[in-house]
Amino acid sequence: MPGVPAVSFDTDPSRYHHLRLETDGEIAWIVLAVDEAGGLRPGYELKLNSYDLGVDIELADVVQRLRFEHPEVRAVVITGGLDKVFCAGANIRMLAQSEHWWKVNFCKFTNETRGAIEDATEHSGQTYLAAVNGTAAGGGYELALACDEIILVDDGSTAVSMPEVPLLAVLPGTGGLTRLVDKRGVRKDLADVVATRSEGVRGKTAQTWRLVDEVAPPSRFDAAVRERARAAAARSRRLPGGPGIELTPLARQVSDDAISYPNVTADLDRAAGLVTITVRGPRDEPPADAAGLHALGASFWPLAMCRELDDLILSLRINEVELGTWAVRTSGDPGLVLGHERLLEAAAGGDWLASEIRLYLTRTFKRLDVTSRSLIALIEPGSCFAGPLLELALACDRQYMLDGVLDDPTGAAGARDGAAGPAQIVLSAGNFGAYPTANGLSRLASRCYGEPGQLAKLEQETGRPIEAAEALELGLVTFAPDGLDWEDEVRIALEERASLSPDALTGMEANLRFPGPETMETKIFARLTAWQNWIFTRPNAAGPDGALRRYGTGQRAVFDKKRA
Amino acid sequence: MPGVPAVSFDTDPSRYHHLRLETDGEIAWIVLAVDEAGGLRPGYELKLNSYDLGVDIELADVVQRLRFEHPEVRAVVITGGLDKVFCAGANIRMLAQSEHWWKVNFCKFTNETRGAIEDATEHSGQTYLAAVNGTAAGGGYELALACDEIILVDDGSTAVSMPEVPLLAVLPGTGGLTRLVDKRGVRKDLADVVATRSEGVRGKTAQTWRLVDEVAPPSRFDAAVRERARAAAARSRRLPGGPGIELTPLARQVSDDAISYPNVTADLDRAAGLVTITVRGPRDEPPADAAGLHALGASFWPLAMCRELDDLILSLRINEVELGTWAVRTSGDPGLVLGHERLLEAAAGGDWLASEIRLYLTRTFKRLDVTSRSLIALIEPGSCFAGPLLELALACDRQYMLDGVLDDPTGAAGARDGAAGPAQIVLSAGNFGAYPTANGLSRLASRCYGEPGQLAKLEQETGRPIEAAEALELGLVTFAPDGLDWEDEVRIALEERASLSPDALTGMEANLRFPGPETMETKIFARLTAWQNWIFTRPNAAGPDGALRRYGTGQRAVFDKKRA
Repeated sequence: MPGVPAVSFDTDPSRYHHLRLETDGEIAWIVLAVDEAGGLRPGYELKLNSYDLGVDIELADVVQRLRFEHPEVRAVVITGGLDKVFCAGANIRMLAQSEHWWKVNFCKFTNETRGAIEDATEHSGQTYLAAVNGTAAGGGYELALACDEIILVDDGSTAVSMPEVPLLAVLPGTGGLTRLVDKRGVRKDLADVVATRSEGVRGKTAQTWRLVDEVAPPSRFDAAVRERARAAAARSRRLPGGPGIELTPLARQVSDDAISYPNVTADLDRAAGLVTITVRGPRDEPPADAAGLHALGASFWPLAMCRELDDLILSLRINEVELGTWAVRTSGDPGLVLGHERLLEAAAGGDWLASEIRLYLTRTFKRLDVTSRSLIALIEPGSCFAGPLLELALACDRQYMLDGVLDDPTGAAGARDGAAGPAQIVLSAGNFGAYPTANGLSRLASRCYGEPGQLAKLEQETGRPIEAAEALELGLVTFAPDGLDWEDEVRIALEERASLSPDALTGMEANLRFPGPETMETKIFARLTAWQNWIFTRPNAAGPDGALRRYGTGQRAVFDKKRA
Repeated sequence: MPGVPAVSFDTDPSRYHHLRLETDGEIAWIVLAVDEAGGLRPGYELKLNSYDLGVDIELADVVQRLRFEHPEVRAVVITGGLDKVFCAGANIRMLAQSEHWWKVNFCKFTNETRGAIEDATEHSGQTYLAAVNGTAAGGGYELALACDEIILVDDGSTAVSMPEVPLLAVLPGTGGLTRLVDKRGVRKDLADVVATRSEGVRGKTAQTWRLVDEVAPPSRFDAAVRERARAAAARSRRLPGGPGIELTPLARQVSDDAISYPNVTADLDRAAGLVTITVRGPRDEPPADAAGLHALGASFWPLAMCRELDDLILSLRINEVELGTWAVRTSGDPGLVLGHERLLEAAAGGDWLASEIRLYLTRTFKRLDVTSRSLIALIEPGSCFAGPLLELALACDRQYMLDGVLDDPTGAAGARDGAAGPAQIVLSAGNFGAYPTANGLSRLASRCYGEPGQLAKLEQETGRPIEAAEALELGLVTFAPDGLDWEDEVRIALEERASLSPDALTGMEANLRFPGPETMETKIFARLTAWQNWIFTRPNAAGPDGALRRYGTGQRAVFDKKRA
């Protein structure tokens, strides 16, 4: 928002304040040693390896770089770099002083980063292990829970704990409750005990209750961790490959009313509460093979575009919270988009980089799915909603597609890119499974949830341009106004959206975007997050006498005892 | 709470203010004609067939009575009894003036009633149809969505609509968003349009978008409804049977610190924020066969106990919101409990009443699962946690079981029922599937979610008494203190629970009670309800300038535009 310093997600290992990356062949170490004085905002000290958004930005960055810059790494150990501390979780004073929207945004990002750790373990052959060499409290233990294995030092004092409910009157909201019972299979009554016992659980009991996988005395701890890391690396199915590619700094230009990158632009209309995002397709043919892809590295269009879009999503979410609607456009040649996708598809089975780029596209599209903004796709002449870029449209709450050409071709949509013919979209094989949503369905399957037969029908339409009338008939778009109505109909839809309550829209969209099955991931973003958001608004936690605000003051919180 | 008039859930068709039950052979009609002046609390008029808790109590009652008192009914039509109105949904002024806890409780009960409608359709061979003969707005359309089929009058003006988001800045929170996409398979972008378009959708478009199953002009509407009702009745797999049994008035006695029924007692300790619920097992052997069961009717122990427990749960939820912990006890002879269960199990395949009682037990246990109170089972000498009553313990957040006998047998637990031997629990076949939770798992399967092998092991232990040490070993109880520690350990656990934030506990319990799969039912109680609760706390809806409060005043709501 204007007047508030913008948060930047740019960082790299040479600039980390809070963690160190150490690589040793197949094994990497992420050592948390948070700089107390290095908080992102003033007003709190990051004691005991507690974290704020700034720390988590570094964590997200290192998880991402390991996948692209260190393809040789097959196991990653997260451990504490301070004396007797693994991680004390989200900083309490930071939470206590933060606005509601900041807390919710912060939690969403930390949840996505924990998800990225699990994604690397499951899909990328980089298995994460938590070497809990000291206190792992709250979000600290939740960070360990995102790892595939947890080794706890058995020194008679170190515990894993979830003190949020008893000390702060909030939930362990970074996936902890869900991962306890759904991922680790902790019995639910024992999970209840863990989540209400502020001192946590130590040693053998922690292992018996399935809170950790192994306990080791200090003398054997390092060896036990290394042994598990080596075993994980040996099991890894990571695709072999030579050197990594460098994730070079993003070329981002920010002005009052625009954020632009080479392949992505966002135009900000503060009066209308609207961001218009335009993703540009590739300008050139894709390289002939995976070797060409490696040679291009971070400038290979799908990766470059994805990094820019990912950065834009994160920036808009935290820096532009009053812009509640994102209109999503594309421009370019659908054929070139599909050509790049074909190369990725052909190479992904054997080439680590192609595989990583597809996984990164999937993660970025998932960020859109859980973004608390209304997403409206505008499919116009000159656009390139094909294959991976069609996912952008399918992630939107509604799709408007111009039928024919604009009545007044000098108007906004008509003039773009000098497009002559009518708008087209193209389905690719990738739309049927390469970019699954959090509940495991493709976006097309999610769209056709009530009519599975329609999905089979759509598969027959793969690879050819589909114009508006047919797209409407096939259920691929919501509305297809003609050139006479387009500008008015889109304007009215965007104005209407801007007039509605942001909270009601957020709740509505969170419910409608995920028909059908649920997974641990969707449970974290739905059930757990929604309850946490509710609790964050309640005086028992966030009010002046609530537990979050009174923590550390010596005064007990005052609770309204009514159960709702 | 003291000083507030208690809500009673007692009613019967002779006392209904808001609806009429008409039966005609296999088909029953529930005609909504809400008495404007008959609101449960002062301050609002129930115009246009809008409802409050009092209306929904009658609806829940009629759905329940149809199953027990009208076994001949195989299809139930819900329709509007006012001119051009089906149902306008939850009364807005009632919502606007209600406390947060009242709104949440109200929504939970209405959700459970909609669930009971679906349960009758799915399991009881009483298929519900909505004859939408006039405006069905918001909760009115959501009531129709709970029915198996929806017939809409096509008169050029009548619409189904979800105006909550655009008019009130809250969600269609009685399952509507979830049922649109998950039950009826409405495409999610169209659901987005429906849920933001206050005027709703009429005629053929409503059918094309799958919002209704059929549209019929006024001249053919009644015939179309009757035809569908007859077809549903003809398809019904309802078990045949003679006359219904009467659900006689409950014998409830209420004092300042106790609510008692013949088979269930609740002791209220307001200082401690604690309710101690004691369910008594049967005093007599079960009848020999289904005929004997019919002869006993509402006095057959499982049904009598279940009705009392159900009424108690509902009463405590709405009338005693500051009593945040329920300790759950039983007393009696486990053998008699199991004898009654065996009769039900043997008869349920062919006898409608036995089947209905099992389904009612299932629904009542599910009410416990979604009750926002901490539930602590106390398993003591003299208790009868066996078969269906063991479900009560398994529904609890924790289970404490006394190992041995009390050190001081004159103390509370020891003196009860003059029990001599140590506490025992007994698993029955029913515990492995007769009483599924909302996510389809048995409570034992839910408990063993992380260790499926344990479930198979438990099946071997069916039918024999299990004492505390073994129950602990088998993972059936959380803690098994001995007689020396029992009183202290239980007291400390209950005091600790009472000291925690009610909101944090509610959120924690809602997350831990449902490991594993999700269903439409759990999605409604988790994702949808949690978001609605959050929205109910937000100033954009419930603040003095929010949409709920400003609705009907002519003043537009003022929204904080920040997206969280």
